[in-house]
Amino acid sequence: MKDNIESMEKLINAFTYLPGVGRKTAERYAYSIISLPNDDVNFFADSLKEVKQKVKFCKVCGNFTDDEVCEICKNRKSDIICVVKEPKDVLAIEKAKNYNGLYHVLHGTINPLEGKGPNDIRIKELVERVSGGKIREVIVATNPDVEGEVTASYIAQILKPLNIKVTRIAQGISMGSALQYADEVTLSKAIADRKEM
Amino acid sequence: MKDNIESMEKLINAFTYLPGVGRKTAERYAYSIISLPNDDVNFFADSLKEVKQKVKFCKVCGNFTDDEVCEICKNRKSDIICVVKEPKDVLAIEKAKNYNGLYHVLHGTINPLEGKGPNDIRIKELVERVSGGKIREVIVATNPDVEGEVTASYIAQILKPLNIKVTRIAQGISMGSALQYADEVTLSKAIADRKEM
Repeated sequence: MKDNIESMEKLINAFTYLPGVGRKTAERYAYSIISLPNDDVNFFADSLKEVKQKVKFCKVCGNFTDDEVCEICKNRKSDIICVVKEPKDVLAIEKAKNYNGLYHVLHGTINPLEGKGPNDIRIKELVERVSGGKIREVIVATNPDVEGEVTASYIAQILKPLNIKVTRIAQGISMGSALQYADEVTLSKAIADRKEM
Repeated sequence: MKDNIESMEKLINAFTYLPGVGRKTAERYAYSIISLPNDDVNFFADSLKEVKQKVKFCKVCGNFTDDEVCEICKNRKSDIICVVKEPKDVLAIEKAKNYNGLYHVLHGTINPLEGKGPNDIRIKELVERVSGGKIREVIVATNPDVEGEVTASYIAQILKPLNIKVTRIAQGISMGSALQYADEVTLSKAIADRKEM
């Protein structure tokens, strides 16, 4: 006997495309589709295609957009660029609501283990933007992991000769966390980078 | 500023239809769609619609099928029916590969708290099947939880007057588990239902 009917099998496979979704979860998702109202399933399917058709990368900053240039690049005037790894990071910073400058999405970080060098991410585009002379500061907001740090150092090295102020987001203890649960690297970083009160 | 572009927002909403998927996970899934190849996204969207169009419930046993009657009902001759809560349970038992009889999917269990009575699940259909006179035994394989037990008792009560042997799947210690980690209810059940060796 076939374990599953063919169309179910196809849908289960499709769900495994999603990050972190294995066979079991995909089965659960696929089964749930059957009990959804028809309209919801159509909405789901259409949204998938629409996103793939409409969502492009902003040709200035590399963020997601459904236009040539994204809303932020279109509407904000600023001489600060915040450099992030992924479009998702833009959203995260926007949600924090205390940054009002521009962005530059690298679409990756330098990662020699994966064979990713500076030319594989959008560093050239960053240098071009900065060379226009209208940018005063570049905040490097890549993740505080090995790849993020390497990428940050590389960007600093390349931009400093252009007389740009390059800063790195602060690293330390998370707000609302407890000291005793912080890892040693974070803790020593927090002490080394202490601020006068 | 819009937090997300519109088509992304729609897709994120669509992903929250899935069981156990909240806003954060939905965002993660939606973002991953953008990096998928076009063909995969189309396959995904088409599979969703196809499942919704093609998958029906077998009019005999209530299992999923893409035909009027499912493969099992079509091809198996047996005088035993195994009663389960959901179509997924059929798959689980089929995978165990030691049962060769028919199935009956209830599509739920009796659950007074949710206002679900015997008439809200496929018990009437079960009685009809059994009344045909060709069924010798009904194995009740609902889950070993309160609702499953209540449903099992109800089914036994209703079928016994029809001179049908009604059995319940064995409950006890899971194979490969350790006694010390078994809960008390399971353990006492396992001792009460002990078998002579």
